[in-house]
Order: sequence, then structure tokens, then C-alpha cells
Amino acid sequence: MQQFSISDQKYMDRALKLAALAVGKTSPNPLVGAVIVKNGEIIGEGYHQKYGAQHAEVNALAKAGFKAEGAELFVNLEPCSHFGKTPPCTQAIIASGLKRVVVALVDPNPQVAGRGIKQLRKAGIKVEIGLLAAKAKKLNEIFLKYITSELPFVYLKKAQTLDGYIATSSSDSKWITNEQARKEGHKLRQKVDAILVGIGTILADDPALTTRLEKTETKDPLRIILDPLLEIPIDAQIIEQKSEAETLIITATEFPPAQAVAKFKKKEKILKKGGVQIISFAVDANNYFDLKKILKYLHQQKIASILVEGGAKLSHSFLAQKLIDKFYYFIAPKIYGGNDGCASFSGSGPKLMADTVNLEIIEQRNLADNILLIAVSKN
Amino acid sequence: MQQFSISDQKYMDRALKLAALAVGKTSPNPLVGAVIVKNGEIIGEGYHQKYGAQHAEVNALAKAGFKAEGAELFVNLEPCSHFGKTPPCTQAIIASGLKRVVVALVDPNPQVAGRGIKQLRKAGIKVEIGLLAAKAKKLNEIFLKYITSELPFVYLKKAQTLDGYIATSSSDSKWITNEQARKEGHKLRQKVDAILVGIGTILADDPALTTRLEKTETKDPLRIILDPLLEIPIDAQIIEQKSEAETLIITATEFPPAQAVAKFKKKEKILKKGGVQIISFAVDANNYFDLKKILKYLHQQKIASILVEGGAKLSHSFLAQKLIDKFYYFIAPKIYGGNDGCASFSGSGPKLMADTVNLEIIEQRNLADNILLIAVSKN
Repeated sequence: MQQFSISDQKYMDRALKLAALAVGKTSPNPLVGAVIVKNGEIIGEGYHQKYGAQHAEVNALAKAGFKAEGAELFVNLEPCSHFGKTPPCTQAIIASGLKRVVVALVDPNPQVAGRGIKQLRKAGIKVEIGLLAAKAKKLNEIFLKYITSELPFVYLKKAQTLDGYIATSSSDSKWITNEQARKEGHKLRQKVDAILVGIGTILADDPALTTRLEKTETKDPLRIILDPLLEIPIDAQIIEQKSEAETLIITATEFPPAQAVAKFKKKEKILKKGGVQIISFAVDANNYFDLKKILKYLHQQKIASILVEGGAKLSHSFLAQKLIDKFYYFIAPKIYGGNDGCASFSGSGPKLMADTVNLEIIEQRNLADNILLIAVSKN
Repeated sequence: MQQFSISDQKYMDRALKLAALAVGKTSPNPLVGAVIVKNGEIIGEGYHQKYGAQHAEVNALAKAGFKAEGAELFVNLEPCSHFGKTPPCTQAIIASGLKRVVVALVDPNPQVAGRGIKQLRKAGIKVEIGLLAAKAKKLNEIFLKYITSELPFVYLKKAQTLDGYIATSSSDSKWITNEQARKEGHKLRQKVDAILVGIGTILADDPALTTRLEKTETKDPLRIILDPLLEIPIDAQIIEQKSEAETLIITATEFPPAQAVAKFKKKEKILKKGGVQIISFAVDANNYFDLKKILKYLHQQKIASILVEGGAKLSHSFLAQKLIDKFYYFIAPKIYGGNDGCASFSGSGPKLMADTVNLEIIEQRNLADNILLIAVSKN
């Protein structure tokens, strides 16, 4: 393991902060920041600002100009060595005369995967790897999952009472959590490519599923509705309201039953005319989709991350099929105090307490009187 | 509002710490600590060690001896002015020649209620009131409730998964929380005069309901079981095991139906012979007791505090009747992930989320990977 100096850490931390400025804008590309340092002074910095735009290293080199000769580069991900939307960064780095490159993470993208580092070393540049790697991994958790698997990164969000309810017996859920918690929830939406809900949530809450944060450049994520029987009302907020966000409804291949075909087709036509995408997947006897198949399809569509919101049944399916990468629990200091409300998961739990899903809480924050727990499964 | 110096605060803090040494041992008397200071040096200190023993002030004065003349006393509760189990502390204080007495709280006990302070002032002693009053109130929350109302102080403990379950669908609950959390649970038991459970908890878990902490002088709290139909098995752990703790079973006056009387009487006889106390209260059409009536009875029996443990139905009744003074939530980072387990409250919740019980979290602690929230109701 290399030893890095305190100032090395400071510069890499800066690169990570720059990278994070583009959260939600680079998908399915990674978040990358770059800092160029000479004689203890930052002479150039930059980040990958959005999908298709110039890479962080190139932005930083442009700022540094001719001074880059003999300088050091700090970048949170291995510089690319292939032609994608832009020419390889390794070329620009070699041409600039940098003498040392510090990289937090080797890019697991099979098109890079160490090749960038090899090229730089071959050109005589000193390359060091692994500085603040854990932080770098966390920052690019979406990209890392996307590039190394066939599935998008899946977040599950729960906003619940202390005793675990997401709505009362009469489906009232406004509001469980406080303003700060809801704002964090919107930040999470801003981070992902798509929000996924079941038709039950649309029928119960009629949500807009947009990110209601102050004007940002981020576009609203794609809104995906699992609606096997196409029960969505034509005037649902998600259909009606103006938003840059697109809407995708996933229906069942096997439906509708013959006598309802005409109605189904008519609604489908109206929705499609309104710009809604509709595709269908097979369902099982209980009208349940094969979620993994849907996730794989979305991955192919370059959806790198999904937020599953609401829907106790849907949550149950995602949990049971171990498809959740990260849990966001917003807990309000309220007691519903009954067992007739809407529990956060609907379906069967395990027979033994030892077989429940064990979480590792990786972040715990107080949002005024609400608590946010961010966790991953240990099972 | 008086201004107190930093050293005043230090001494009162010490008095509070001393007082706390006797948690669980003085009921229904308060926890009291006393510190005597002269020329910036502690020359005597003491606390009320157990019910019936000498008061804190007298213990501290005994340590200080003749040096008490002209010294200052810090005590967290107003010194008593009446003959109880021991002579009034005010007499001893006046006799000792103390020049200043700092009191955190005026004793709301109608037998004291400012009279002690009056006596001291009349004798020419400077008395100041209110230093660290909030902390002093918290320390003696049980005594304050006991002495100012007809009800004991009621704690409700919940040990649950993140999604609010206290057992699986097959009633398995071992273990939800970690060792540290369970140890805190036992500390809570040690603090109270009685633990109260419903017969359901006995039948499901067969708990011992003793305080399983390392050898202390504290006696196990009284174990109260609400068992209208006297369903408790003769060989339940709570009956069988050796413990200094007494057991009280509360049955329904109206039961049993005539044809079961003989069986009921026989069981009652065996239990009573084994040292179990049995008393009966009226129940309503659903076999529910009037909990307030039971609490008043227990208060008359000098039960100053009760811990309600387990029992989703019982918890629901206590919550609905607003009888809970303090909530202890032990939350494990586990997801049950279904809606078929045992929820923490069994019964109806409110129709509107706005009508749920709003808590103020007064303490939040991490017990390794578990979270403890201590809260009071704001409703």
C-alpha cells in the first residue's frame, strides 16, 4: 500500500468534491473530478459536468495550460484510454508533460480496466493508485454497479413512523416525515435515472414523482410505473403535469382478458399520444413481474440507477429477490400505534427472526426531529 | 433567576451523581444526593441509599462533622421538614451551622412543598433554588409523578426491527436487539418497582422478567401479569424459577364462566400456595381491564413506577389511554420485510397521519449497531 501525504489527501478530496458537483448529470458515465497541482498550488481543476461533455482531466488541463508540464494530477477515477464520446484522456495527459498522476480507483469499465494506467506508466509518468479509494467507491456506487453487472443500482426509500407504518388504515400518509426529510428524499430522486413505483402508489397517492428542489440543471428522472392491467387514470398527476421527465408504463403481456381489449387499447393509445411510453413484460399467476428481467431491460436502456419509492408489495418483491443495493430510511418520531395501517412491506416475512434482512448502517443523520438511516444489506 | 457559579454547578452535578447511585432502591422515596463544601473543598457527601435509610443530607453532615459550621450544602431536592421514617433534615441542617443551602428542586410532596426552605431561611440560612433543575427533574421523574398524581410513572419498552416488528409470524423474537440493548433493557427493569405484561407475552415467550445484571443490591421488580382468564401455565418460568421478585396476577372479576369455576379455583389455590398474589378487577365486554383503575390501585400499593414490556394489545391500550410517560425504543438494523409478523401495537390506529402520537425524542444513543430512542409524547 502506497503512503500518501496529507496534501495528497487534500487534493484528492478536492477532486472528489468537484466530481460530486455533477451528481445526477453524468449517467451512465461516472462522476469524475481532477485537480492539477504544481509547487503546492492548484493550477487547474475540473470535473465531468454532464453525460457526453468533456472529461474532468481535459477540463483541468485546459485550465492549467502550459504550466501543466512537470505538475501532478489528482483524479478519482483512472483516466480513460479509449475513444468514446471524447478522445482518450491518457493522450492529453501524456502530451501535457505531467510527471505524476494519483488515481483513487482503477476504472472497472472493461474498456479501461488498468489500460489507462499502463499507458501513462509506459510514457514515464509516475502513477499511484488507491488514495481515498473507499470514498471514491461510495461516490461512484451507481457507475460501479452499472459497469460491472447487468443491473442498475437500486435504492429503496422508506418514509415511516417509528413503528414502521407508511400510511394509516385510510391510506393517509401526508405527512409522515418533516420538511428536511422530504427535501433529502428529493435530493435522492435527483441522483437517479429513474423512479419506480407500483400502480397501487399512483392510485393511493397520485404523486408527481418529480424532484421538487430549487431550479437545477438536473432533469427529472424517468418515472416508471408497474401497471400490469393499465389501471392508471388518464388524469393522474404523473400523466397530466408538465415535466421534462418521461413516463414509462410497464404492462403485462398476457393482459387484458379478451373482453377488455378494446378499452385497454384505447387507453394505451391516448397515453402514447400524450408521450407516455408503454412496454409489456410477462407476469406470473399472481400478476407479478419478473423484476430482474425488467431491471436488465432498463440497464440495457442505460438506466444506471433506480429509486424504488412506495408500494409495500413492490418493496416486498424487491427485498425478497435481494435486488436492493441501498436503503434510505426516513424515520419520524411518530407512533401509528395500531396494526391496521399500511406496513412498509406487504407479504410474508421469514419464520425466524434470525432470517430477517440484516443491515449495516453506513450513515446515520438527524434531520431536525427525523432520523435518516442509510444502509446496505449484510445478507 | 439566580446566577450560579461554575463551581456551584460542579457541586450540584456531584450531588446528582451521588443521588443516581441509588436508582431502583429508594422507591417510593426520591433519589437525593448531598455535597457539603467549605473553602472550595468537599468536606462531606452522601446520598439516600435505600428506602427507609437515612437521608442524603444527614449522611453528608455526618461525614463533615464539626467542620460543617459555616459551610455550604448542595442538594438536589428540598430538605424534608417533617417526621417520616427519619427526623426532619432541616433540624440537622440548622443545628450544624451551615450558612448556605443550594437546592435544585422544591419538593412537590405536599408534606414538604417549600416548608423545608422556609424553615431554613427562618433560621438565617441563605437558600438558593433552581440550580440544574431540569436534570434534577429528570433524575426524579418517577418520584415527581408518584407524589403529584394518583398514578405510577409508566415506561413502555419496545425492542423491534427497523420496520416495527417485535416477532415473526411464528412468534419468534430471539433476538431482535443486540446484547448491549438487552443489557440496557435490564437496567430499565432495575429502575422500576414493577414490570407489567399481558398473558399473551407469557404464553408466547415464557419470560423470567427478572433483571439479569451482575449482582447488585437491587431487588427484582414485582412482576404483574394481566391474565383475566387465569391462563398462565403452572410451570411458567415466572412461577417456577427462584427469584426474590414477587408475582402478582390480575384476573377478571366476572370470570370464569360457571362451568370452569372448579378448574379456575384449583389453579388459583396452587398459585397462591406457591406465593403468587392474585387479585381481580372488572373487565369490559372484550375482556379488557380498566388500566387506569389498576394503575391507581398499584399507586396505592406504593408502586411508583411500572415498565410495560411486550404485548402488542396491552401496548395499544396503554397508548390509546395516554398512560405512557416515557417510551424506550430499542431499534435493531434488521428488516422483517413482511406484514404478517407481530406488530408492536395491535388494534386500530388513527385514520389520519396527523392524529398519530407525536414524540419528542429526549435521548438518542447508539448501542453498537442498535439505536435507543427515549421519548415522551407531545400530544
